[in-house]
Amino acid sequence: MPVFEIEEYRQRLTNTKQAMEKKGIEVLIVTDPANMNYISGYDGWSFYVHQGLIIFLNKDQPVWFGREQDSNGARITSWLDEENIRGYQDHYVQSKTCHTYDFVADLIKEYQHAKKTIGVEKDNYYFTAKCYEHLIKGLPSARIKDGEEIINWIRCIKSPTELTYMKMAGQILEKVMDTAVNMIEPGVREGDVAAEVQKAMIAGTPEFTGDYSAIIPIMPSGKRTTTAHLSWTDRKYKKDEIVLLELSGCKNRYHAPLSRTVVTGNPSKELEEISKTVIHGLNTVVDFIKPGIQAQDIEAKWRESIAGSRVVKESRIGYAFGLNYPPDWGEHTISLRPGDTTVLVPGMTIHVMPGIWTDTLGFECSEAVYVTESGCETFSRVPRQLFVK
Amino acid sequence: MPVFEIEEYRQRLTNTKQAMEKKGIEVLIVTDPANMNYISGYDGWSFYVHQGLIIFLNKDQPVWFGREQDSNGARITSWLDEENIRGYQDHYVQSKTCHTYDFVADLIKEYQHAKKTIGVEKDNYYFTAKCYEHLIKGLPSARIKDGEEIINWIRCIKSPTELTYMKMAGQILEKVMDTAVNMIEPGVREGDVAAEVQKAMIAGTPEFTGDYSAIIPIMPSGKRTTTAHLSWTDRKYKKDEIVLLELSGCKNRYHAPLSRTVVTGNPSKELEEISKTVIHGLNTVVDFIKPGIQAQDIEAKWRESIAGSRVVKESRIGYAFGLNYPPDWGEHTISLRPGDTTVLVPGMTIHVMPGIWTDTLGFECSEAVYVTESGCETFSRVPRQLFVK
Repeated sequence: MPVFEIEEYRQRLTNTKQAMEKKGIEVLIVTDPANMNYISGYDGWSFYVHQGLIIFLNKDQPVWFGREQDSNGARITSWLDEENIRGYQDHYVQSKTCHTYDFVADLIKEYQHAKKTIGVEKDNYYFTAKCYEHLIKGLPSARIKDGEEIINWIRCIKSPTELTYMKMAGQILEKVMDTAVNMIEPGVREGDVAAEVQKAMIAGTPEFTGDYSAIIPIMPSGKRTTTAHLSWTDRKYKKDEIVLLELSGCKNRYHAPLSRTVVTGNPSKELEEISKTVIHGLNTVVDFIKPGIQAQDIEAKWRESIAGSRVVKESRIGYAFGLNYPPDWGEHTISLRPGDTTVLVPGMTIHVMPGIWTDTLGFECSEAVYVTESGCETFSRVPRQLFVK
Repeated sequence: MPVFEIEEYRQRLTNTKQAMEKKGIEVLIVTDPANMNYISGYDGWSFYVHQGLIIFLNKDQPVWFGREQDSNGARITSWLDEENIRGYQDHYVQSKTCHTYDFVADLIKEYQHAKKTIGVEKDNYYFTAKCYEHLIKGLPSARIKDGEEIINWIRCIKSPTELTYMKMAGQILEKVMDTAVNMIEPGVREGDVAAEVQKAMIAGTPEFTGDYSAIIPIMPSGKRTTTAHLSWTDRKYKKDEIVLLELSGCKNRYHAPLSRTVVTGNPSKELEEISKTVIHGLNTVVDFIKPGIQAQDIEAKWRESIAGSRVVKESRIGYAFGLNYPPDWGEHTISLRPGDTTVLVPGMTIHVMPGIWTDTLGFECSEAVYVTESGCETFSRVPRQLFVK
């Protein structure tokens, strides 16, 4: 059973078809697992082989295609009718002689759409150069164009039920973050803290368990905090070390991420200064977020609030997030940076994440928020501070 | 610090260059995170943005490209010299106006290779259709061809140190599987078992901790066992239910996977019959594996050993595995199926995984092995049986 009412999936499909029409797309091939889930409810760890949905403008339901051995997964987790679940034979898997997109081209021919305008998710991880090549070869009379992030942009605005799942993820996250902050001490192995963090993410609460996160717990220490995406090792924390925590809760594939920083002893002057500046900037930005402003205004506010400090931040300070699968919980739509003119509306969900990584240290303090009618609210309540242990 | 001696990385690079020469490739763009790690040691959860290595036939070291904020990660985890770590500015990330492969094309021009034959990993998740398009546009005089799975095939044969890491993963796996089998009982929440499984995977042993796995714990129950890739939910196990366990241990990104099946009470006649047939087939195959035979011979042996039973198995019964990142621990090279003529040699590592999913139930019992001089050995010792609780 899918985790939303069928009516909600139908509304999403209607919204997608409207966007397709605007772009002049008659058929959309959906390869992003999050987009597949958003439209059909399909939820399985099968995206390591080629799979997708085909949305036909003139057809009531999308067509799911995937490996035959995964098709019962589509029957169980999606709302699609039997006739729209199309498993392919196993010889298409990682073959040297044929490719899944030969099968996809045949499907589109079968539905009489071989000469139509077909949109693809051209920069999605799961739509490889080879998928594209086989599709073009299989449908020489079609016009194939970049669908860009059609569905991702629709996903930007969350429904009440989506926000409910994200708030559940936020509840889990509070426990996850507590677990990490409490356990980190000199002499403890990084991996032992990561183990308890993973356990807390899945065990969730007495009322509901959690899902796996689209990004592993990012929790480097010491020198490894000078960069954005390293994590735990076998080593034990030492005294006076920085530990970054970029963690999350996840429910029904909806995330609530958060970053905090712990220091095992005395923070250096530099760390203290950076943490004060970043937390001031973060507070300013969270107070500022409301409907009607542009994504780039938020970044400008941040820049203004840290002006005169020693903090240098060249990369974006946040992004849209929500429903997702590895390797990312970001939605690849809104970025908080100059030039992003997206206007905020209620229901948008943004991770304000002004991570700082210098050549000597790292500091992270972030907030995940949803835009309300008058401002924004956070998904969890974790003090915005440097945790000194 | 990378986890192998630099000499081992250099040998891998030499092997890769030899394979490039054979294929007439002068420049190879490596986007598979496992291949990046294999050649350079680079290990970070940064593959959600475009990144890679560029291997030039005439250059001593590959060039790492990635987001600027990840470049300290390359300095810390790889063996590459400073001049070969090339971070790109953040405006390339998920932009509507430019693309990382514009930067990559510029890099290749800078190294005077704009008119050469360039190999790409055309069916790798992280080499999207859009990457390909921007590369072609940026290098109009280059000849761009499919590098296929050049490095994946080199990875097939593991070195002694690689096998050591995989045996460590096997040690972890034994604890992980024990945890799951012991905890599963009617009335227990699926998610609570998954939580302890995740914890066991990371906590590892007193001597070493574990890594995250490239595939989450796959552990569906009841009706959800009729398909290959569903996992835990909030629900509690009931009596007389099947639970599939496809779990792993992981160390330094090297995996040891394994599947077993638990039944919470009395197995049905159908389940008993399937389990006997599959375990007999698995035993036969594991006894059969040795250097000199072809991958397809293994599948034929399986087919012969289950002949006359009610077990139907259309999909491949196994694949090469080892070093990897999400979404797969498989190496996308050897498949145990008709037509795969790869000849086994010592050091190859194969997950023999004849999973059965019918419309009423699932049964999994697998074995992960490495080929020795005279036969094969398993990475872990877990009884090959249906666990009746």
